[in-house]
Amino acid sequence: MFPQLSAHIRRFVQLTANEEEILFAKLQHIKLKRKEYLLQAGKQCAGNYFVLKGCLRQYFVNQKLNEQIIQFGLEDWWIADQDSLLNHQPATTYIQAIENCELLLLPENERQDLFNRVPAVERYFFIMMQKAYVASQRRIGFIFNQSDEERFRYFSKLNPAFVQRVPQYMLASYLGFTPQFMSRLRAKKV
Amino acid sequence: MFPQLSAHIRRFVQLTANEEEILFAKLQHIKLKRKEYLLQAGKQCAGNYFVLKGCLRQYFVNQKLNEQIIQFGLEDWWIADQDSLLNHQPATTYIQAIENCELLLLPENERQDLFNRVPAVERYFFIMMQKAYVASQRRIGFIFNQSDEERFRYFSKLNPAFVQRVPQYMLASYLGFTPQFMSRLRAKKV
Repeated sequence: MFPQLSAHIRRFVQLTANEEEILFAKLQHIKLKRKEYLLQAGKQCAGNYFVLKGCLRQYFVNQKLNEQIIQFGLEDWWIADQDSLLNHQPATTYIQAIENCELLLLPENERQDLFNRVPAVERYFFIMMQKAYVASQRRIGFIFNQSDEERFRYFSKLNPAFVQRVPQYMLASYLGFTPQFMSRLRAKKV
Repeated sequence: MFPQLSAHIRRFVQLTANEEEILFAKLQHIKLKRKEYLLQAGKQCAGNYFVLKGCLRQYFVNQKLNEQIIQFGLEDWWIADQDSLLNHQPATTYIQAIENCELLLLPENERQDLFNRVPAVERYFFIMMQKAYVASQRRIGFIFNQSDEERFRYFSKLNPAFVQRVPQYMLASYLGFTPQFMSRLRAKKV
């Protein structure tokens, strides 16, 4: 029913046809137009979203009222405000479509029942969370130990298609430098 | 048998006496003297460590051969090189005791069997991972959006006892500024 998600899950755990059915029955298919919001700060995050198609950004608004991007969501990624889910409190981040998107929502109030009935899905989500944690720890390392230019070069090398896909000012926000610096970097044909 | 860990787990999930026994039978009690290493870069991380007593730091050595602290481990925290565990590859970080420590090791090769037999423990570890991820995402936000001084003040306010407990140069490394800057800050009696 959702072959793309099936394929992704199979990379980490094995589900029987019956277990897949239990999972799929809980998912909601969501379409979002470019610039529409999946989540706004102050609202409760509804659950975990799997990106079937498109690209999203997750950001918060900092003290200087700038948008600070903390995460992108691309095909085959899960995205959510985990702080809101974990602590049952209003989200502190916004999640907005950068392109027209298709997503699958696993509603938070269905998650525990799903995990109880299909432990392999819990295993899969544990691995997803572990991967997200490792990535954010690595990112902290890069922030402290690479210059802005090194960080941009490294990120571009790892994600060449992605760098072409999103607006420059968003990349700049994610990497923690100004759009002006980004323009200068690009002019050097990094 | 390990009342401190029992109490911590009970904050998040409920285990039966029998389930606790299954968990405890898999744990190894470890003592570490100050400055001893729990893990060195290049070695496989043995599993997840629960801190019963003492304090540890996790760091990697950056390109300039400086030690960059990415995490501290305190009483009631779990610490591990998740990258090594997740990807079955040698650790990129060092974990070293700052004080004499007592720890419980859940060996990685026992984890899956434990999760299969006691799903509630998997739930507990999922929550621990979610908390760690949320904390590191918040930390990225602070790095980008607070000045060094704001970051130090904020961290000190949240963790007053901890700031007294660890050497200044380690705090400086964790917060991403120089020991000199830290000394100046402290001289202002922050």
